[in-house]
Amino acid sequence: MKQIYIIGMGPGKYDQMTVEAIKKIEESDIVIGYTVYTDLIKEIWPDKECLSTPMTKEYERCVMAFEEADKGKTVAMVCSGDAGVYGLTGLMLGIAPDYKDVNVKTVAGVTAALSGAAIIGAPLIHDFAVISLSDLLTPWEKIEKRLECAAIGDFCISIYNPGSKKRVDYLKKACEILLKYKSEEIPCAIAKNIGRDGEGYTVYTLSELKDVQVGMFETVFIGNSMTKVIDGKLVTPRGYSNE
Amino acid sequence: MKQIYIIGMGPGKYDQMTVEAIKKIEESDIVIGYTVYTDLIKEIWPDKECLSTPMTKEYERCVMAFEEADKGKTVAMVCSGDAGVYGLTGLMLGIAPDYKDVNVKTVAGVTAALSGAAIIGAPLIHDFAVISLSDLLTPWEKIEKRLECAAIGDFCISIYNPGSKKRVDYLKKACEILLKYKSEEIPCAIAKNIGRDGEGYTVYTLSELKDVQVGMFETVFIGNSMTKVIDGKLVTPRGYSNE
Repeated sequence: MKQIYIIGMGPGKYDQMTVEAIKKIEESDIVIGYTVYTDLIKEIWPDKECLSTPMTKEYERCVMAFEEADKGKTVAMVCSGDAGVYGLTGLMLGIAPDYKDVNVKTVAGVTAALSGAAIIGAPLIHDFAVISLSDLLTPWEKIEKRLECAAIGDFCISIYNPGSKKRVDYLKKACEILLKYKSEEIPCAIAKNIGRDGEGYTVYTLSELKDVQVGMFETVFIGNSMTKVIDGKLVTPRGYSNE
Repeated sequence: MKQIYIIGMGPGKYDQMTVEAIKKIEESDIVIGYTVYTDLIKEIWPDKECLSTPMTKEYERCVMAFEEADKGKTVAMVCSGDAGVYGLTGLMLGIAPDYKDVNVKTVAGVTAALSGAAIIGAPLIHDFAVISLSDLLTPWEKIEKRLECAAIGDFCISIYNPGSKKRVDYLKKACEILLKYKSEEIPCAIAKNIGRDGEGYTVYTLSELKDVQVGMFETVFIGNSMTKVIDGKLVTPRGYSNE
């Protein structure tokens, strides 16, 4: 059987990959992914054959993976974090029916909500929502609606793609929506460069967060009404009597 | 410096742990966790010293970890999935200020929303909410409110603790709330025994899901309004024109 593995690489360091992810990359003949991730592969496995397509050419990248598999190569399609969270597993499974003799298996990885939370404390201990502020593929009205619902439901929130050069004021707009329902004092944090050089985080209140400039490699966390700051870390209680 | 690692073990298999989780367990003198997880540790590292407390004695388990670290032992506190998602990282960070010379580091793992999604397809490709139906530590009204908000926001939803012997009708009650806002035909799935013997999943419509009996070791996935079933798998589009 021809084989593709769709692999979540986690935040970026070798140590943050699962054993299964490493094994599947090692047994693959070729690795396909966005250049940032194939560069990481090359650092760890210098002799591994890698292919890539530019950003926005995700569909072509997925077809490339099936074409390579169809030639008989075992293919690893790599994504950062988890391939099932704003990753390419969906596109891949949509193309799969055109390649009936290619088997597709997904290997889960640690997405930024989890790797970021581990750095900044325990913000997502209770019910949480993950929302991307990128309106490249999603109408902004839908994003606004989800922010509003997550705030009304008092969810802890992890925000992906909080800003970029083109989207300088998106986090501000998001915070303004959240502030309609959440207190100004709710603890928030931004984790940056998770699993890379310069890894770190900063704690803010929700009203402070509104005016922070964020970039592509940052993940934002917003507490629920119970979230506290303990020794500089965000901690959401689970409800134990001792908390 | 005295050291505790809080470690997410992922769904259960050795291969699904991160390299970092394995390294930190190996360098620990003692592993503390609920017996289900320390039993897994014993299978992999038969000579590792393990300690446990029964379920509902989580606070005592956390204090035990700090006491052992205070004696000078390097401690691994293990949780299933990710310790930051319905895990013990929050309790641990709440106790940490009482043990100023114990350093606490969290090692992220693959939570059931991700490992389950990898089995059933790509249900969480877009914005999603994670909600636990356990009302042991959370008032049921709050859970209902979150289900309602997640449905109105058209989130993909992953449901933890969907049922138990005592909570036989909780998934039914949850589905009834979701059905007020979501279509009866929305694709859903239940992943069971993720990373264990008997791993598998079943696809339902939301109206079918209402009458399914679920247990402790199952994780439920509910699509958003765009989610499709492709070759028997749940696939949520991300918004690409080719999807």
